[in-house]
Amino acid sequence: MTARPDPLNDDDRFMNIALEEARIAAYAGEVPIGAVAVIGNEVIARGHNLRETLNDPTAHAEMIVIREASVKLGQWRLTDVTLYVTIEPCAMCAGAIVLARVPRVVFGARDPKAGGGGSVFQILQEPALNHRVELASGIKEDICSNILKDFFGNRRVRDKVDKIVKTQNSPQRTLRTQKIHIDNKGFFSATSALSAVKK
Amino acid sequence: MTARPDPLNDDDRFMNIALEEARIAAYAGEVPIGAVAVIGNEVIARGHNLRETLNDPTAHAEMIVIREASVKLGQWRLTDVTLYVTIEPCAMCAGAIVLARVPRVVFGARDPKAGGGGSVFQILQEPALNHRVELASGIKEDICSNILKDFFGNRRVRDKVDKIVKTQNSPQRTLRTQKIHIDNKGFFSATSALSAVKK
Repeated sequence: MTARPDPLNDDDRFMNIALEEARIAAYAGEVPIGAVAVIGNEVIARGHNLRETLNDPTAHAEMIVIREASVKLGQWRLTDVTLYVTIEPCAMCAGAIVLARVPRVVFGARDPKAGGGGSVFQILQEPALNHRVELASGIKEDICSNILKDFFGNRRVRDKVDKIVKTQNSPQRTLRTQKIHIDNKGFFSATSALSAVKK
Repeated sequence: MTARPDPLNDDDRFMNIALEEARIAAYAGEVPIGAVAVIGNEVIARGHNLRETLNDPTAHAEMIVIREASVKLGQWRLTDVTLYVTIEPCAMCAGAIVLARVPRVVFGARDPKAGGGGSVFQILQEPALNHRVELASGIKEDICSNILKDFFGNRRVRDKVDKIVKTQNSPQRTLRTQKIHIDNKGFFSATSALSAVKK
C-alpha cells in the first residue's frame, strides 16, 4: 500500500495548495474552491471550480481533480488518494468521491447549505453504500471560509455598483471605470468604487 | 418557456432511446444504464455509462448527458431540459441534476442500493437545497431493471467460466473460445459456454 500523507505534518501543506487553487478561481471570477489529490507526498492532480468558464454545472474542483487523477493513474479506482478540498463537498462531489473509492478526504470549512459530508447529507460515510470515507475537517477553516465570504461580499457590492451605475449618466460611468480594479489578492475592490460612485 | 415533453405521449418514447443507450453500454461491457436529455420534442443529448472505457469514475450516463447538453446550449443552467434515465440516479448524478437546475427527471427502475432519488438519499427533492426536481419513475421499469439483472447475471456466469477454464488445460480453453459469443442483444451468452466447459 502506498504511504499516505501524514495528517500532522502534511494536511496544512496540501490544504495550502488547495487554497492557491481557490485564489486562482477567484481571480477568474469563479466561486473560489480548490482541491488537490495526493498520493504519499506527491500531488498528482490539482484544480479549481470552473463552472462559469466551461459552462459546465459539473465542473467543481473535486470533480476536475478526480477526473485528472483517474487519467493520470489510468484507472477509476483512486484507492491510494487523499483528497484535499477547501470547502465540504456537495452531494455530487461526495457521490463521486465514494464512486472513486477515495479512502480519505480532508476539507477546510463546512457548507451548511449544501454539504454532502454531514451538513445536509452524509454521503461520505453512509453505511448503505459500498464505500465509506475517512474524514478530517476544519483544516485552515477560517481562511477557506473567508475566501468564499470575501468573494460573495465583493460580488454583492459589485452588483450594487452596477445597478447604481446603470441609473447614472456617462460621466459617472467613467468615474466607475477608473475606480474599480482587481486588487493583488485577485478580488474586485468594489467598496471604494461604490463610495466613489455615491459621491 | 420551451414546451416540455408530454408525459402521456412522450415519456415511453424517450425512455426507449435511453434503453437503446443502455444496450450499447452492455455491448461494450459497461454497466447498462442510458440517459437522454430532451427539450420540447427534441433529443439534445444522449449517452451511456462509460466508466470502464474512459477509466473515469464520474462517467455515468447522466453526467455525460448533462455535460453534453451544457456544451450544446452554451450554458450550465439546463432549465428547459427533461432528463430520462433507465435507473434512479446515484448521489453524484442526483447532485449534478440539482446543480444544473434540471426541472424534471424521468427514471425507469429504482436503485435500492445507491439511489439518490429517494431510495438511499433524497437529493432531487431536498427542501434545504436551492432547487427541487419534479420526478416520475416506473417508466418501462421492468425492461430497465432486467437489462441490469441480465448483465450482472451474465457477468457472474462469465466469471465462473473464467475460474473453471483457468483450472483446465488448453484443449478446454479452445472449447471455451469456440462456444462463448456475444448474442444479438449485446449480451454475453455464458450459460451455454459454462455447460460446454462442464461437459
